[in-house]
Amino acid sequence: MNQAAVRSASEFRVRYAETDQMGVVYHANYLIWCEIARTDLIRQLGTTYASLERQGTVLAVSEAALRYHASARYDELIRTECWVDRVRSRLVRFGYRILKIDDDSSPLKLVTAHTTLIALDASGRPRTMPADLLTRLKGSE
Amino acid sequence: MNQAAVRSASEFRVRYAETDQMGVVYHANYLIWCEIARTDLIRQLGTTYASLERQGTVLAVSEAALRYHASARYDELIRTECWVDRVRSRLVRFGYRILKIDDDSSPLKLVTAHTTLIALDASGRPRTMPADLLTRLKGSE
Amino acid sequence: MNQAAVRSASEFRVRYAETDQMGVVYHANYLIWCEIARTDLIRQLGTTYASLERQGTVLAVSEAALRYHASARYDELIRTECWVDRVRSRLVRFGYRILKIDDDSSPLKLVTAHTTLIALDASGRPRTMPADLLTRLKGSE
Amino acid sequence: MNQAAVRSASEFRVRYAETDQMGVVYHANYLIWCEIARTDLIRQLGTTYASLERQGTVLAVSEAALRYHASARYDELIRTECWVDRVRSRLVRFGYRILKIDDDSSPLKLVTAHTTLIALDASGRPRTMPADLLTRLKGSE
Repeated sequence: MNQAAVRSASEFRVRYAETDQMGVVYHANYLIWCEIARTDLIRQLGTTYASLERQGTVLAVSEAALRYHASARYDELIRTECWVDRVRSRLVRFGYRILKIDDDSSPLKLVTAHTTLIALDASGRPRTMPADLLTRLKGSE
Repeated sequence: MNQAAVRSASEFRVRYAETDQMGVVYHANYLIWCEIARTDLIRQLGTTYASLERQGTVLAVSEAALRYHASARYDELIRTECWVDRVRSRLVRFGYRILKIDDDSSPLKLVTAHTTLIALDASGRPRTMPADLLTRLKGSE
Repeated sequence: MNQAAVRSASEFRVRYAETDQMGVVYHANYLIWCEIARTDLIRQLGTTYASLERQGTVLAVSEAALRYHASARYDELIRTECWVDRVRSRLVRFGYRILKIDDDSSPLKLVTAHTTLIALDASGRPRTMPADLLTRLKGSE
Repeated sequence: MNQAAVRSASEFRVRYAETDQMGVVYHANYLIWCEIARTDLIRQLGTTYASLERQGTVLAVSEAALRYHASARYDELIRTECWVDRVRSRLVRFGYRILKIDDDSSPLKLVTAHTTLIALDASGRPRTMPADLLTRLKGSE
């Protein structure tokens, strides 16, 4: 992403249910946190993913990749950032950075990730993204 | 339940994702295990919940109550039992018993529970249960 | 609870991961939301559950009961309220009310619940609650 | 992997809790299914991950990548396969293939994935893997 890109920032605390017996956040939960950040980015771009689905377009994850740098623990304050990495007519790739911010120290990078999503119609067939969505996503790069 | 009642028994191992930082299974997961047992009971009664939904009937949980007696840990072998506790035309109450069985010793009772489910149509309105389902549920008491 | 009782209020949006194929929030997730509200109540009382565990006291759920009144959907704004219902030296019962608030209309009650928690030491044996915690909990009734 | 490699195969049905409002399995759950397959592979190699942790070695996920080919639905029968892809003294990379098998037709590939795990001691510091584990993992390639 270039410096001018739109980037969402969502903050929340780690839930007890998200920890595992290692005492840290279970690794699959970061994909859920990416989705929270993505939802917030789309809202920030002036629409909502909920309304998109109601209008018959689904964005289905076709690829996901995560790198785990450090661990989060129960009740810590988390910030998830999301931005548009690449847009095509039928797919969009989002980038993510997940940070721990509840220390006095500077934010600690926990996870970096990206996911690729493809546009589907209500019956699950690939389709081009609605023009309005495409414009918003491209404008945010 | 009387002694002649149909009772399902599902077995599986505790997933790592189901543990929390206390080192035991997070308490909300037992509701998910109850649902596994309920799915298996309905299959045992000769139909499937999946087909019921496809035919336009949803069973929505309206009440749940759980008592936690002992804790389960990662990779332990679990048995969940489910039976029909009470049936009315619009609702059914299931009973559950969740046990740990991977010791040489006798099974250890972890959780007892019950849930009440009400029948809804595809648009979320209360309805009477399909006659065939009602017959199967009543026959299992 | 009486009118003067301390009551926490936590707000967040429904995550996509929390929905199920019925199109609404899966019922087990409300227990997770209760825990969020409980964490926030304890913080509001001037301590944190995280520090309590670090000092060797665990509060383990021994009973839970939920009544489901209405359904929540993806991206809706939720408020969970929690208060102390009853305190004894070894256990505490919390009450919960979960509401949907993202409409222009008045809040909609989704779930009412209560959970009973018992104090355990680090090795899982019942213990009396730390005096400081007991005082805070009793003061909030 | 070469043809002679050890490959675990775990089978289970999709839980209702694992679906989302799209009517299919929520994408983060496949990471949980990978962990089930990994647990079973380690058991097949003659030890258990649970005992490994009890002896002070943790395998923490440092990277994960998933490709989603098709969707799974509630109650469908799933098979997850896992094998050792690469072993070093401090890390191991596992490969996964997740299939749907409850049709009369041939298995349908849902997800392919790999995860890299690094060995940590009980206090979270990188360590070399126990010699016995290393031997078992290398022998399975």
